[in-house]
Amino acid sequence: MLSYWNDYPTIQNKLQIVCSLIEEQLQVRNKDIQETLIDFAKSGGKYLRPAYFLLFAELGDTTKQNQKQLFKVAASIEILHMASLIHDDIVDDSPLRRGTITVQSKYGKDIAVYAGDLLFTQFFELITQAMNGSYYLGINAASMKRLLLGELDQMHTRFNQQETVEDYLRSINGKTAELFWLACIQGAHFGKTDKKIETLAGQIGRNVGIAFQVYDDILDYTADQHDLQKPILEDLAQGVYTLPLIFAKEEKPEIFASYLAKKNELSLEEAQKVAELVVTYGGVQKAKKFAQNYTQNALQDIEKLPESQAKKEITHLTKQLLQRTF
Amino acid sequence: MLSYWNDYPTIQNKLQIVCSLIEEQLQVRNKDIQETLIDFAKSGGKYLRPAYFLLFAELGDTTKQNQKQLFKVAASIEILHMASLIHDDIVDDSPLRRGTITVQSKYGKDIAVYAGDLLFTQFFELITQAMNGSYYLGINAASMKRLLLGELDQMHTRFNQQETVEDYLRSINGKTAELFWLACIQGAHFGKTDKKIETLAGQIGRNVGIAFQVYDDILDYTADQHDLQKPILEDLAQGVYTLPLIFAKEEKPEIFASYLAKKNELSLEEAQKVAELVVTYGGVQKAKKFAQNYTQNALQDIEKLPESQAKKEITHLTKQLLQRTF
Repeated sequence: MLSYWNDYPTIQNKLQIVCSLIEEQLQVRNKDIQETLIDFAKSGGKYLRPAYFLLFAELGDTTKQNQKQLFKVAASIEILHMASLIHDDIVDDSPLRRGTITVQSKYGKDIAVYAGDLLFTQFFELITQAMNGSYYLGINAASMKRLLLGELDQMHTRFNQQETVEDYLRSINGKTAELFWLACIQGAHFGKTDKKIETLAGQIGRNVGIAFQVYDDILDYTADQHDLQKPILEDLAQGVYTLPLIFAKEEKPEIFASYLAKKNELSLEEAQKVAELVVTYGGVQKAKKFAQNYTQNALQDIEKLPESQAKKEITHLTKQLLQRTF
Repeated sequence: MLSYWNDYPTIQNKLQIVCSLIEEQLQVRNKDIQETLIDFAKSGGKYLRPAYFLLFAELGDTTKQNQKQLFKVAASIEILHMASLIHDDIVDDSPLRRGTITVQSKYGKDIAVYAGDLLFTQFFELITQAMNGSYYLGINAASMKRLLLGELDQMHTRFNQQETVEDYLRSINGKTAELFWLACIQGAHFGKTDKKIETLAGQIGRNVGIAFQVYDDILDYTADQHDLQKPILEDLAQGVYTLPLIFAKEEKPEIFASYLAKKNELSLEEAQKVAELVVTYGGVQKAKKFAQNYTQNALQDIEKLPESQAKKEITHLTKQLLQRTF
């Protein structure tokens, strides 16, 4: 997974350290769980959140930085992300994640529940070690809560044909953008940048996170199974109605109503038909525009960062991430 | 549930405040989850852990105490306990808890996974508010981890006929005694007792927790279904071999081997037969002696506490809790 960072050798080296730190953290008495978690940690995640964290930290005053602390916080963000993925896969009954079988389908829900819990614990342990006494501890607690409330929002609006763009935005703001926000704002903070950059960093992270999730949801309607390494149209089958569908539905509500009324009895053929209709009625097109807007805002804010190698890499990374080909 | 505390009016009043604080904490946007959690919080837990916490706090210098902080820490311990119960019920597929249907059987595993997660978050939020900057934050993180490792140990040794008293002790030390330890040691600490009492408090909590769990496991072999309000012999059916069985098995391994070899295909009749054999071969008797030993140690340590109303109530409570009738 770290091959994603071949163009960013400094970050690649640092992520290697984060990776080892995570692996170290996952040493537990129970060997099943340990192997499960180490497998999962190595199974192809890009470590985007720690990467953004480390890049924003590079903007700060290196003479004042505590490198050990930085690596711990970077690892904590990825661990929190991993925990939420494992529990989401239980709730979604997902067979695949990152092209490999999920923890819950491989080891069962028992292991998956506790494996996720253990990661929450490791997250908590790491940030306590790294920042006890800082008000950022409270910010992490609040962030973890918003992450979870985002998941709950998504679960709550399943099969809800009335779901609005605002509902969707609220959900992805929690479930995805929150951790990008946290990564960037904490990178700037613990990297010892000034307060203005810290606020800007948070704003950039928020916008990157929203655009990232919208593109991810678009892929569900456009990628073929092989490319994406996860079953397509999974969200649709689970009643998670994302932005492309919401936009297309606004255009032609009556066409979608009869399909969506079938809820989880939608057949694969019908789901494919819905996907075609989403494209036909401009849902994908509009969602792309929506994401581009957030990407633009992020890039404009990045432009305001002080000139540096880190700024160049943040710009490059953000473009690479958010200007995918469709 | 607070009727359990009719003989302890001061504690009863304080637990009422803890209860309200927990309810306040559980206000979330998602009304399903909120109701689920408030139902669960009110469904008959005795609030033993916050009670021990508050009693040990009363031993300290009240002029130096921060009451708001004390209530927050008391609530945090109960919330951590609730979180672990909800996730345990998923893993155990338990239909009943405290005589009422479990979160997972009532609302499904999706809600139960996130409901437990949300409680971990609330725990984290409360202790961060209450003690950011204190080394007790790290102690809480470590404690949460040991709690989870205890659960994992238990899951890991399921259907293991070779399980020893040491394995059992390690598991209950984590899954039960840890939180009693935490409640008592933190009560003494945040109640501003002196360091010696703090250490003693932790020791008392540890021993009370172990005895409490052993008695609980004995009940599985002696209580009838009506009394206990949970299906008896559940642990046995799930392959959780507790102390009475371990002791009886040491006495007559060959008699138990053929039953246990059936693993989760043990019928109800066979499980009842095993339970009878456990009594016949002295497993219950020996487990009681084992628990009495820990109770005695706890009571001897309690004797060393400074004379006070709190000491009287700790003594009374511990006897009430650990000298159950069988």
